[in-house]
Amino acid sequence: MTRSVSVLGSTGSVGSQTLDVIAHHGPMHFNVVALAAGSNATLLAKQARAFHPRFVAIADTGQYLALKELLTDRPDIQIGAGADAVVEAAAMDAEVTMAAIVGVAGLAATMAAVARGRTVAFASKECLVAAGPIMMQAVAASGATFLPVDSEHNAIFQVLQGQDRGGLHRIVLTASGGPFREWTTDAMKAATPEQAIAHPKWSMGPKISVDSATLMNKALEVIEAHQLFAVPSAQIDVVIHPQSCVHGMVEYADGSFLAQMGPADMRTPITVCLGWPQRIDTSGQRMDLNALSQLDFTAPDTVRFPALSLVRDVLAGSLADSIIFNAANEVAVAAFLARRIGFADILDCVARMLDDGRKPAIKSLDDVLACDAASRELALEFINGKIAA
Amino acid sequence: MTRSVSVLGSTGSVGSQTLDVIAHHGPMHFNVVALAAGSNATLLAKQARAFHPRFVAIADTGQYLALKELLTDRPDIQIGAGADAVVEAAAMDAEVTMAAIVGVAGLAATMAAVARGRTVAFASKECLVAAGPIMMQAVAASGATFLPVDSEHNAIFQVLQGQDRGGLHRIVLTASGGPFREWTTDAMKAATPEQAIAHPKWSMGPKISVDSATLMNKALEVIEAHQLFAVPSAQIDVVIHPQSCVHGMVEYADGSFLAQMGPADMRTPITVCLGWPQRIDTSGQRMDLNALSQLDFTAPDTVRFPALSLVRDVLAGSLADSIIFNAANEVAVAAFLARRIGFADILDCVARMLDDGRKPAIKSLDDVLACDAASRELALEFINGKIAA
Repeated sequence: MTRSVSVLGSTGSVGSQTLDVIAHHGPMHFNVVALAAGSNATLLAKQARAFHPRFVAIADTGQYLALKELLTDRPDIQIGAGADAVVEAAAMDAEVTMAAIVGVAGLAATMAAVARGRTVAFASKECLVAAGPIMMQAVAASGATFLPVDSEHNAIFQVLQGQDRGGLHRIVLTASGGPFREWTTDAMKAATPEQAIAHPKWSMGPKISVDSATLMNKALEVIEAHQLFAVPSAQIDVVIHPQSCVHGMVEYADGSFLAQMGPADMRTPITVCLGWPQRIDTSGQRMDLNALSQLDFTAPDTVRFPALSLVRDVLAGSLADSIIFNAANEVAVAAFLARRIGFADILDCVARMLDDGRKPAIKSLDDVLACDAASRELALEFINGKIAA
Repeated sequence: MTRSVSVLGSTGSVGSQTLDVIAHHGPMHFNVVALAAGSNATLLAKQARAFHPRFVAIADTGQYLALKELLTDRPDIQIGAGADAVVEAAAMDAEVTMAAIVGVAGLAATMAAVARGRTVAFASKECLVAAGPIMMQAVAASGATFLPVDSEHNAIFQVLQGQDRGGLHRIVLTASGGPFREWTTDAMKAATPEQAIAHPKWSMGPKISVDSATLMNKALEVIEAHQLFAVPSAQIDVVIHPQSCVHGMVEYADGSFLAQMGPADMRTPITVCLGWPQRIDTSGQRMDLNALSQLDFTAPDTVRFPALSLVRDVLAGSLADSIIFNAANEVAVAAFLARRIGFADILDCVARMLDDGRKPAIKSLDDVLACDAASRELALEFINGKIAA
């Protein structure tokens, strides 16, 4: 088979690992239609030279000239800039679109890919958190095949295949516990961005690494699982599993647990998505069964990691709660990475915004974006006020 | 749903647990059409009173009058005796037939159930070992749904559902290692039937418990997996996993391991089969995730457990090798249980029969039965000679 692929967010962690997998399989198996990135013109140009897409888009218009310069000898590659160009890349006729733009920024592009009714491999949990019902409706309307790239949801997706959904007893999401799994509350308060980013198991981008340290990542994944698989909050459990071998489990009515296991290597779920429904060779490591010799599963500590109790309130609320939950977190994580606030302030900000934020009815993508923008503004005000105080 | 079920081998371990599951769900969900047993008239009559089937069959004709006597006040229940009556029970129009007669004795009845083209839940690995290609051909011809009850194959079956078979990398069968997992060769030589039957994890019949102690059970399961899933020997691995939590795994090309886990309780796979493709509630225990906190996976010792190396030769040979492998083992296990030979003599007998047995071409069920009978005779001669010597 030869499959055409577009990669949105190609210079990020999932995007560049996607291109690694494509390179491993070679042009006999995959050809790249379009690449889109945020602002890293140098890497995007390098990727364009290696994979010769028809179109490259850079979201940051300030990088347009730099990108054009770097590809001046490649007139066969069209270049676009700005948010519209990223949507244009998403709308190109690739069989598989890897939607790997971090955060709500990827929403419009992901929706454009979904609208084409082909396969969308989906790595931006924030979009699903903020606009889940709207996205899933669009998926149903277009008939797109919607594949979760997140290792946990990819695992759940795999073990739901060919099974009786009516007999689902519960979904079990595993969490590594992050770098602060065994830290005290006081130690966590003093944690630096460097410490938060040093994830013990997974190599990921900085935003998701911080989310993994607060367990906000897992809280967002509970919402993601709820949206993707249409399973109520009460049937989605989180367990701490530091070895990150079991990525997800489904327990069925008859007592069977079906689990997906594999190396802590994003190339596995990426490969699953690029090949689906075929299983193609991994370019990553294979898991040694000895890796399973000690597996721990413990209940999470919701006092040190309040994200996991807050998410239950969010799911009991409206879609606006999810949008605020995510927006406040994105703003707070950025402030933490910029050393403007401390680690514990991230969840303080999220909790306060859930209390204080306005919660309008969300009926459209515009409503989502408006609520998201308002929530970010309020979160930023809160953070600035906190710093000034 | 209400499903009609027949149970062949109803007084055995799997058969009586099947009736437990049926009782748990009640007559709104299952009604029993026929029961067949070997020789335990007392238990069969008790089961007939509890589940009121239309027909009960007892293989041992010497027990016919006793059974008739026990059910004299139940003229609504027809009674038959002998091998033909068991086949007649299998041929009755149940939606699901649980074929749980131990050993090759169940072959004709299982084939009669398969011929009806409905669902056959299949717990007699010996039949599949001795007549795999013939049985699988009959399954294909009748369009029957053929569900493995063995926990390992049931696990593999579950994680093959809805997946790309072309991308199967390997099947991993787990083995508890049996009661002699850590015994020395010398200690094993002196093992008694009581010690061999005391299985650490599973409650099973005596024959299969001894097979579990020799790991012959796992060797037969390698053949069973080869026949059921059409996967070559080289892609079927065995690992020792004493906790018996992970019942089976499939590794796919992309590095994903899909595993089925659950309590060491046959009611789980039995429930899976009775409800399939629906998932119905278990009457057994649910697995606590803490059970997974320590999982060991090690390579089996083929010196102390030669069954696992012999099986590779068997699979490289012809179907006659499989028949001899199984027949010699059945005879030797019976001799061991009767205290006529020692524990280590079981595999000695099997290995010798594989060297000495005649290996005719097997084209029909009659060929299977003839080869099986000849192999048993030869094995018995060998054992008698050994004892006399």
